[in-house]
Amino acid sequence: MSKELVILAYSGGLDTSCILKWLIQKNYNVVCYMADIGQNENFEMAKQKAKSIGAVDVIVEDLREEFVKNYMLPAIQMGLVYESRYYLGTSLARPCISVGIVNAARKAGAKYISHGATGKGNDQIRFELSVYSLWPDCQVIAPWRLPEFFNTFQGRSDLIEFAQKQNIPVSATPKEPWSTDENIMHISYESGVLEDPSAVPPLGIYKMTRDLKNTEDYPCVIDIHFKKGIPVQIQVPSGQEKALVITDALTMVQTLNKIGGQHGVGRIDIVENRYLGLKSRGLYETPAGTILHMAHLDLEAYAVDREILRVKKYLQDKMADFVYNGYWFSPEADYVKKCLKDSQDAVNGSVTLQIFKGNVIILARKSEISLYNQELVSMDVAGGFSPEDSTGFININALRLKEHARFVKLTEK
Amino acid sequence: MSKELVILAYSGGLDTSCILKWLIQKNYNVVCYMADIGQNENFEMAKQKAKSIGAVDVIVEDLREEFVKNYMLPAIQMGLVYESRYYLGTSLARPCISVGIVNAARKAGAKYISHGATGKGNDQIRFELSVYSLWPDCQVIAPWRLPEFFNTFQGRSDLIEFAQKQNIPVSATPKEPWSTDENIMHISYESGVLEDPSAVPPLGIYKMTRDLKNTEDYPCVIDIHFKKGIPVQIQVPSGQEKALVITDALTMVQTLNKIGGQHGVGRIDIVENRYLGLKSRGLYETPAGTILHMAHLDLEAYAVDREILRVKKYLQDKMADFVYNGYWFSPEADYVKKCLKDSQDAVNGSVTLQIFKGNVIILARKSEISLYNQELVSMDVAGGFSPEDSTGFININALRLKEHARFVKLTEK
Amino acid sequence: MSKELVILAYSGGLDTSCILKWLIQKNYNVVCYMADIGQNENFEMAKQKAKSIGAVDVIVEDLREEFVKNYMLPAIQMGLVYESRYYLGTSLARPCISVGIVNAARKAGAKYISHGATGKGNDQIRFELSVYSLWPDCQVIAPWRLPEFFNTFQGRSDLIEFAQKQNIPVSATPKEPWSTDENIMHISYESGVLEDPSAVPPLGIYKMTRDLKNTEDYPCVIDIHFKKGIPVQIQVPSGQEKALVITDALTMVQTLNKIGGQHGVGRIDIVENRYLGLKSRGLYETPAGTILHMAHLDLEAYAVDREILRVKKYLQDKMADFVYNGYWFSPEADYVKKCLKDSQDAVNGSVTLQIFKGNVIILARKSEISLYNQELVSMDVAGGFSPEDSTGFININALRLKEHARFVKLTEK
Amino acid sequence: MSKELVILAYSGGLDTSCILKWLIQKNYNVVCYMADIGQNENFEMAKQKAKSIGAVDVIVEDLREEFVKNYMLPAIQMGLVYESRYYLGTSLARPCISVGIVNAARKAGAKYISHGATGKGNDQIRFELSVYSLWPDCQVIAPWRLPEFFNTFQGRSDLIEFAQKQNIPVSATPKEPWSTDENIMHISYESGVLEDPSAVPPLGIYKMTRDLKNTEDYPCVIDIHFKKGIPVQIQVPSGQEKALVITDALTMVQTLNKIGGQHGVGRIDIVENRYLGLKSRGLYETPAGTILHMAHLDLEAYAVDREILRVKKYLQDKMADFVYNGYWFSPEADYVKKCLKDSQDAVNGSVTLQIFKGNVIILARKSEISLYNQELVSMDVAGGFSPEDSTGFININALRLKEHARFVKLTEK
Repeated sequence: MSKELVILAYSGGLDTSCILKWLIQKNYNVVCYMADIGQNENFEMAKQKAKSIGAVDVIVEDLREEFVKNYMLPAIQMGLVYESRYYLGTSLARPCISVGIVNAARKAGAKYISHGATGKGNDQIRFELSVYSLWPDCQVIAPWRLPEFFNTFQGRSDLIEFAQKQNIPVSATPKEPWSTDENIMHISYESGVLEDPSAVPPLGIYKMTRDLKNTEDYPCVIDIHFKKGIPVQIQVPSGQEKALVITDALTMVQTLNKIGGQHGVGRIDIVENRYLGLKSRGLYETPAGTILHMAHLDLEAYAVDREILRVKKYLQDKMADFVYNGYWFSPEADYVKKCLKDSQDAVNGSVTLQIFKGNVIILARKSEISLYNQELVSMDVAGGFSPEDSTGFININALRLKEHARFVKLTEK
Repeated sequence: MSKELVILAYSGGLDTSCILKWLIQKNYNVVCYMADIGQNENFEMAKQKAKSIGAVDVIVEDLREEFVKNYMLPAIQMGLVYESRYYLGTSLARPCISVGIVNAARKAGAKYISHGATGKGNDQIRFELSVYSLWPDCQVIAPWRLPEFFNTFQGRSDLIEFAQKQNIPVSATPKEPWSTDENIMHISYESGVLEDPSAVPPLGIYKMTRDLKNTEDYPCVIDIHFKKGIPVQIQVPSGQEKALVITDALTMVQTLNKIGGQHGVGRIDIVENRYLGLKSRGLYETPAGTILHMAHLDLEAYAVDREILRVKKYLQDKMADFVYNGYWFSPEADYVKKCLKDSQDAVNGSVTLQIFKGNVIILARKSEISLYNQELVSMDVAGGFSPEDSTGFININALRLKEHARFVKLTEK
Repeated sequence: MSKELVILAYSGGLDTSCILKWLIQKNYNVVCYMADIGQNENFEMAKQKAKSIGAVDVIVEDLREEFVKNYMLPAIQMGLVYESRYYLGTSLARPCISVGIVNAARKAGAKYISHGATGKGNDQIRFELSVYSLWPDCQVIAPWRLPEFFNTFQGRSDLIEFAQKQNIPVSATPKEPWSTDENIMHISYESGVLEDPSAVPPLGIYKMTRDLKNTEDYPCVIDIHFKKGIPVQIQVPSGQEKALVITDALTMVQTLNKIGGQHGVGRIDIVENRYLGLKSRGLYETPAGTILHMAHLDLEAYAVDREILRVKKYLQDKMADFVYNGYWFSPEADYVKKCLKDSQDAVNGSVTLQIFKGNVIILARKSEISLYNQELVSMDVAGGFSPEDSTGFININALRLKEHARFVKLTEK
Repeated sequence: MSKELVILAYSGGLDTSCILKWLIQKNYNVVCYMADIGQNENFEMAKQKAKSIGAVDVIVEDLREEFVKNYMLPAIQMGLVYESRYYLGTSLARPCISVGIVNAARKAGAKYISHGATGKGNDQIRFELSVYSLWPDCQVIAPWRLPEFFNTFQGRSDLIEFAQKQNIPVSATPKEPWSTDENIMHISYESGVLEDPSAVPPLGIYKMTRDLKNTEDYPCVIDIHFKKGIPVQIQVPSGQEKALVITDALTMVQTLNKIGGQHGVGRIDIVENRYLGLKSRGLYETPAGTILHMAHLDLEAYAVDREILRVKKYLQDKMADFVYNGYWFSPEADYVKKCLKDSQDAVNGSVTLQIFKGNVIILARKSEISLYNQELVSMDVAGGFSPEDSTGFININALRLKEHARFVKLTEK
């Protein structure tokens, strides 16, 4: 009888290397799938490693542009922030990778998808819900949730021992005492020594951004242009005749990551609520994402009607939860994405901002067509405004308050 | 027949000085009322000025502690932010001043309240809605909305001319080309040259905070302690045996203003939506408010249940709109304040943060009793968690998604 | 100098007849505009009356189909209900009439629009906000808000006296002691003897629907078909080979009004919150609207995903407020209409219901493609469902609750 | 070694009788727990049956008053309706029973709780989440989710065979082809022949309410009095000198059930969204609950401020979901219950309504102190209202709309 085919989301690290071997021992044929979403990884070396362990094939796919165009920039457009602070760098990457692996699985004729995500985390959920949405008949093998596996490998030392026995190369450099998730949008740090929310994180933990004391001494001023809420061009530095003008989405993000990194922009240290119901502490650095988010927020406030903004706020908070919890591919997210996109028709223009010492400082914003009416708002010009109208406006709005005061007085008698 | 008594919200400036004179010419007796809410003002000189113009009395009342305790700190507790960025420094001051002036009016036996707010702004609304809630029978005289007044005084030069004719002292220093509102929580800048949202604000505009290039070169690390979401103590610097420990609300805010100011914390430049329906551009600096808000946000996320946070988020967005629009005293704000306060029972503990180069950097947070369970969240310890349960959780949540995928497939046929 | 042209929303009644005369006396040329939106009115007689008073022209426009297709049925699709009970019959008619009168005004070259709505009501607001949205430069003459007019005409008797003097025909039948607004969707009753919310309304007040004791003794069973949430066909009676099949929107509504009327369907007696801040008591009868709303609600729950329904619920409550308050034509309503429409892609199918004794009884619903999976839900068939998964689902959801119980126990110590 | 003690939620029916025997065979001591929440059950006979099967003890507890006072009436006060139609009769009963069984388990020293709820339904979730909240260390045995059990008992016939072998009495009357849940608030019907949403339910299915053709020929008019939103007294018939006055909560509900039943009030037939993600069809009859809900809705609209109502609406929709999904005992429900209760301070007064032919017809409402100001709202009296103010109110609200129209025109160029 022929062996069944599993496609494994492979990282090159200890966990998925051991899982690869374990699946082979379980009599599966295993194809390894690696998505390049901008993480700092030696894909060639990882490929060799997987092959040496026994993978029947190793697929490396460059999803960086796909990730930036269809996940990261739409998230900026939608204004997604989880629990007021987190820009969802990891949450957005999972569905993107899921599309890649499902397509690869179908092409390869695999029946199973396997991954190395743990049983307490968000990523197993994001990954599997995405996979099930895209491929409802798929079967998932999640070794870290199978007693047979997690009882055998109770800690890192069990994995190392297994690896050594099975001739799986183990990195000589000791693992950092926390775990990391990296892509072109952000790096996250959690677990290990970071699990104690009252412990100040160790120095030197961040990789994309410099510590404030090492940042550049001169600010960088840039222009960011938006079309329907999507960043479409950056100009560095602003206002210079020979400024660098970038319109390619991937290059734009890479450039802003570099600038943001030099100026120490985009770090947060938070306690967040996981979908499973746990609270967990995480550190994130999101340089380009932070700059783009703040620019978008500024232009949106300028360009969009007040009442649409109120409705959009509700929708974006819902959407941030959907994405964090793994529902990027779901009826509700499809629906809300559409609604949020519709809210951005007027978000066309540019924002000028200064990047300096960890700060993103909005300096100015422009929009050829805007709801902003300088003459109307001006304190110096009447601009068609009749001040007497305000009296009526106030008096009518006071009606209900006066009635309430009357009522409260009656109840107090 | 005896003259009727007006109480005038007096600032000492050109506008309210002319209004004072104008009211006297209209045959009213006028009592001037000045609230000290932390603005940089020579109250004694203003008092003399009002008397010289003809005020029958001038009342100066120190409302700084009242403002901090009953408006600013509760706003921190409630997490109020208008349109994602503005901490409502002016909006919170108006109802506080209104209480003062209404009490003064009642004591003096006045029938009218008058003010110098313009007809296009938010403050006339906040002021009058507060006054009508507190004193439904009050009558308001708002000269800037009376054609008789605003047709006479069509610009600043008309006011100056009137002042000179009436022997009202006019400041020799020319007015800044923007207008300012100042209190212990913040200073706002708007109008004039700032009305163009695409114009970079002039250098040197800010007064409470230093420009980044002039900030201190060493960070300041402080601890902020909260009780039921209210900041009750700060410790500067953190972790030092002989640290400064402050528990008095007013001193706490003053100290954080000083530290925040030295480090350039809390500036924003935004376009906001006024209640009247206009968009307007404003600059704000809120040093202590920014530090306290970020500390509170961090501790709250740590201490409060996820689902309560979701409901609270909805309520705080509503409340921010109520406050901005002038409904601090209203049935809905009374109600939502109560609900928001109830959400803070668990927000007890401290946050350690670093103030540096315009940044408020959260380093750690503590809470003796917390929903955070380090063992449960730990990647190294099972802590009572059964990884198999996650499989069921995911599979059940995938049910609806698979059904939807089935449905979409059917519709595509 | 030539006279300026006013277009007057004319009803044929006492108020607008006197306003017509008054405008003429004010030296305006007046064109009268009457929209037929299904009210029981002798348009020919009203036309003659306006001409005899001195209107330069009288336009009668049949907007019934326009009203049904572009206002009433979309409201059904969007699920609009104000304050949980009122189907917005009057609120929906105002913007429809406003389009008619603005178009007529532009064609006639009028500069002013005038109407007879009172200063305390909602309709002035709905009418004028619609007009200003459609034609920002329009000028509105609202006599009931002009002191010159309302001081002259302080009560009905002043109007009658004026009419008699001016040879304006006054109806011999005494006015009912309440006011009425009628269109093809509903009739509303308010004011006069109805103003006391504790007074039982007089018998015989309703016109579209029979009292329960006079309703038909046999139920009527009908099928209503929907396409993307819009009712597109009714079949009366259900299941009969030779049933009446109606697909014309206007005829559909007329038929359901007749059936609903015979069976006493769709009356409510409520206290509602007006936009101005007042509470007011109103009676409404909405036979076809009630039947269609209940059918739509049923099919929607069957056809739409749970989480989309939650978002849609929020949006429909917002939209109901927008419509009630007069913002049918506004950026926010344009936006939310679009979002709500997008939520209805799957609402295709039919509902069978029984109309009997004031009740609309849902009997069954069908949808060729539906999210409902009878096998999956069945208690008798496994249908691909693994009961063990529910254990994991429950245990994971209990995690947060157990943590909270642990926390509460700690706080109680 | 001594046997471990299980407490079993026992119904007397086939399922839980077999589970009882099965647990005993598994070497447990079993105490049976039966809650009387108003279902039509012969508790004495069930008790004997359990004892004869081998229960070490059988506890029957009358929770009817507890259920009415602490679950049903607060749900009326909070205005809970699931998905716009379902009054949550079953969802409210589960947490009530959970308190009873947890208390009994603790008293008896049991370590396990067992129940007969199936793996596809809501009740397992509601029951277990309540139990885990009240008693985090409890262990639940849910046989219908254990493969060992559900593989053995694949259908009803397997259970009957097992029962006959084990001498468990099996009812001679054949089971109805649907399942039922009954308590003092409602009866629900689902499953079996009802699983097809397009099938008209069989005649004679309902037990609490008469079919419309058999209802009473004379209406019943009653008064319902509320205190802070809780029904505290009913008067039948209204306005009679010697009317029946009931203030006891349980009797009140029983009386309204009787009247509602005679008049056929409170039936619905809906498709609803289960927490697990399935859609399912259910029939419900809730006579007293429907009457009380409609009375409460009416008085609340009359007594509560408009803006508080808006916030309350959001909260009540959230709370209905919490309750439906099993989170009655949870941090979020504790919190929102408190907020909702706070919204009801002004809901004091009475509603007069007519019960007739399936209809609950509101006739009038009274409240000694109310926000309703008849003079202010009156069309005949000015009542302190200045119609000119409405002009300003409208003009200011039109500002934003005119700006938008200007903007749209620009974009169209």
